Amino acid sequence: MRIEIICTGDEVLTGKIVNTNFSYMSQKLEDVGLSVQWETTVGDQRDDLLQAFLLAGQRADAVIVNGGLGPTVDDLSQEIAAKAAGVELVLNEEWLVRMEEMFRRRSRVMPPNNRKQAMLPASAEMIDNPVGTACGFALDIGKARFFFTPGVPRELRRMLEEQIMPRLLARSGQQSAIYLKRFHSYGLGESHVDALLKGVADLVPDGTVKLGFRAHYPQLETKLTVRGTDIADVRTKLAPVEQEVRKRLGNFILAEDEATLEGVVLAELTQRQASLALVEMFTSGQIAARFAPLPGAEAVFRRGTVARSVAEIYAAVGLTDIPPPGEITPAMAEAVATAARRQAGATHALAVLVDLDAGADRIDFGGTICLAIATAENVASRRSRIVGGREWVRLGAAEMGLDCLRRYLQDLPVDERIDFEKADDKA
Amino acid sequence: MRIEIICTGDEVLTGKIVNTNFSYMSQKLEDVGLSVQWETTVGDQRDDLLQAFLLAGQRADAVIVNGGLGPTVDDLSQEIAAKAAGVELVLNEEWLVRMEEMFRRRSRVMPPNNRKQAMLPASAEMIDNPVGTACGFALDIGKARFFFTPGVPRELRRMLEEQIMPRLLARSGQQSAIYLKRFHSYGLGESHVDALLKGVADLVPDGTVKLGFRAHYPQLETKLTVRGTDIADVRTKLAPVEQEVRKRLGNFILAEDEATLEGVVLAELTQRQASLALVEMFTSGQIAARFAPLPGAEAVFRRGTVARSVAEIYAAVGLTDIPPPGEITPAMAEAVATAARRQAGATHALAVLVDLDAGADRIDFGGTICLAIATAENVASRRSRIVGGREWVRLGAAEMGLDCLRRYLQDLPVDERIDFEKADDKA
Repeated sequence: MRIEIICTGDEVLTGKIVNTNFSYMSQKLEDVGLSVQWETTVGDQRDDLLQAFLLAGQRADAVIVNGGLGPTVDDLSQEIAAKAAGVELVLNEEWLVRMEEMFRRRSRVMPPNNRKQAMLPASAEMIDNPVGTACGFALDIGKARFFFTPGVPRELRRMLEEQIMPRLLARSGQQSAIYLKRFHSYGLGESHVDALLKGVADLVPDGTVKLGFRAHYPQLETKLTVRGTDIADVRTKLAPVEQEVRKRLGNFILAEDEATLEGVVLAELTQRQASLALVEMFTSGQIAARFAPLPGAEAVFRRGTVARSVAEIYAAVGLTDIPPPGEITPAMAEAVATAARRQAGATHALAVLVDLDAGADRIDFGGTICLAIATAENVASRRSRIVGGREWVRLGAAEMGLDCLRRYLQDLPVDERIDFEKADDKA
Repeated sequence: MRIEIICTGDEVLTGKIVNTNFSYMSQKLEDVGLSVQWETTVGDQRDDLLQAFLLAGQRADAVIVNGGLGPTVDDLSQEIAAKAAGVELVLNEEWLVRMEEMFRRRSRVMPPNNRKQAMLPASAEMIDNPVGTACGFALDIGKARFFFTPGVPRELRRMLEEQIMPRLLARSGQQSAIYLKRFHSYGLGESHVDALLKGVADLVPDGTVKLGFRAHYPQLETKLTVRGTDIADVRTKLAPVEQEVRKRLGNFILAEDEATLEGVVLAELTQRQASLALVEMFTSGQIAARFAPLPGAEAVFRRGTVARSVAEIYAAVGLTDIPPPGEITPAMAEAVATAARRQAGATHALAVLVDLDAGADRIDFGGTICLAIATAENVASRRSRIVGGREWVRLGAAEMGLDCLRRYLQDLPVDERIDFEKADDKA
């Protein structure tokens, strides 16, 4: 089945907003084994919209149009859809009543121009939008089935996932149960993970399990798409593959599915009624900014301290034996974590010290990282060197700090070599 | 002049990467008064590429193609460009020598498959790429001039700005000197600024000054595009408009052109050899994470403290008269900023306290912000309420904190009402 997407609107066409609706839609469809073959972006111009609809109607089997369903004069999707399909616009009473109700529930009267949102092409099938006033619809133009969706991301997502994807899967004749299993890892590059997972998809010999990746440094997402006759069939197929991925990636899997690294750390700490102190140097509050604002973190997060020099960090956590200027060491990170934990009265402390290379930012600009995790009973530390520019070092150091804390809490080795660090003769 | 853009590559088409190259190109062209009218994304498929080139060649005057100039087998742009133009691919000796030199300078031998990057359509004009091995080129397909550019953002940017935009401007017959002046503001919404600036572009009656906006909460960018016969002409035209914009937006302009809010604050502090302590609550290190890692900040930034409760913040900065649980007040922020400044031995301190609404995140979830700036001589404070969800409150509180510090350092009122805050009967 050939699928095209048409994005509409001057804001997207002029680059005023980055087109994340498109990448979202395309990824979602990929995840269930449907592929987009062609994408077109046009502005709020009648001629361009009509031409885009007619061209896609000649080429594709299914077309998703995004945007142009609003109440203002530059929202033209219904009008041009009707023209392209050769039908009239007619008032959809059902949607009009729905809209009036929505406004009533918010104690407001519907403005007259919203009525335009209930005008649909005569041949259209209405597609529900449970979270907004833009009515979705489907109709045929040329040889393709067109699906019209709102530009508001929240409304688009609901409509795509709940209404349009099932219709597309039915049209494509694919088996109906589809499941996407995701693993998030840190420390192994995409090609390394690809090599490690060689053959896992073949554990299900009928080809219904597909392996894919999405790299967003410092994390890598490994995706398993599984198709089956029903959800029980999917679960049966997925189980051995899922288990094998966990076995092969092992300690490097930091979270699965919707979970995040900071969320996993928070859950581990919450579960043992623990509390956390953080000390940061060049990461400069980035670790705290990921962890501390999470719902529930207010009960766990005690204190974060940020400073750019070792002397200032020592002073801030109440240490008096400030080391002379020189290289940072894991012993320093241990001393800082231990003192910070005691100072904040926390059960756990993480300290991440970074020594930056001198000079301007450049592709081989690097940093040495010494980090430590302290509890009342013991302290663990790790030294590493990351190269790739200031921001690369900063992102890497923040991730390594949080991931080492995750490893510590899960009784895994804190000091396990990762792909992103350079061999360091001082280590 | 009708301009189209064609983006190529499976990674963009499948949504694996978000297409920021397109929004960058479209914005850059808008900034000099050129508009993109149509965008197409296709994958690394010969048929789709050929069809996309031929269709654009029928419709447009100029087409920019992005991607597909690499050395691997799925890089097809040169091959399909030659086919669409009805010419052969021929080896460009000049580019081959350039590539071999690039590899030699890095003490490497050019791999054989890079030779493919020097194969250009016979009718092509070479377009220089000073920072990579992908050779740009231009040629005619149908009635349009096509410009082929690399997918690597850094290479695309250099080529677009230095090579392609001057050619497009020449073809469009526009006056040759063009200048983009940018103002960054915080606290006024786009429609408010639009109203405030009504008529400023008309100060130059010939219509060569264009006003535009780009909103990225919490900041708004106001753009003046000026065209003229030469740069002196542009400067003469811009001067009165620029002055009028500064006058009308006044205290709300936080930076101009390439400058950032955190950079302006750093420059102000550096200039007076000052130093800074930060205390954050729900912003959780986000203010420190913007300021402290800047080059040069290591000499100014003393200490950042993050905690999620008032009691913990008081304890962290060495205050003993911890207030009973209850609402936060500007007086508390003043006490915390004063203590934090003294504790860190800094000349300036900024404290941003936030009291979050109870319950789950929602669109009317809000927070009360009390912030203070302390020096040895005095202390200023401000109270505000922001509504719009957890992340909206967090971004707004971080921005307001940094912007009030900027205002303080520039002798401007710290407590000036902004569009994003709710009327608060307690204020």
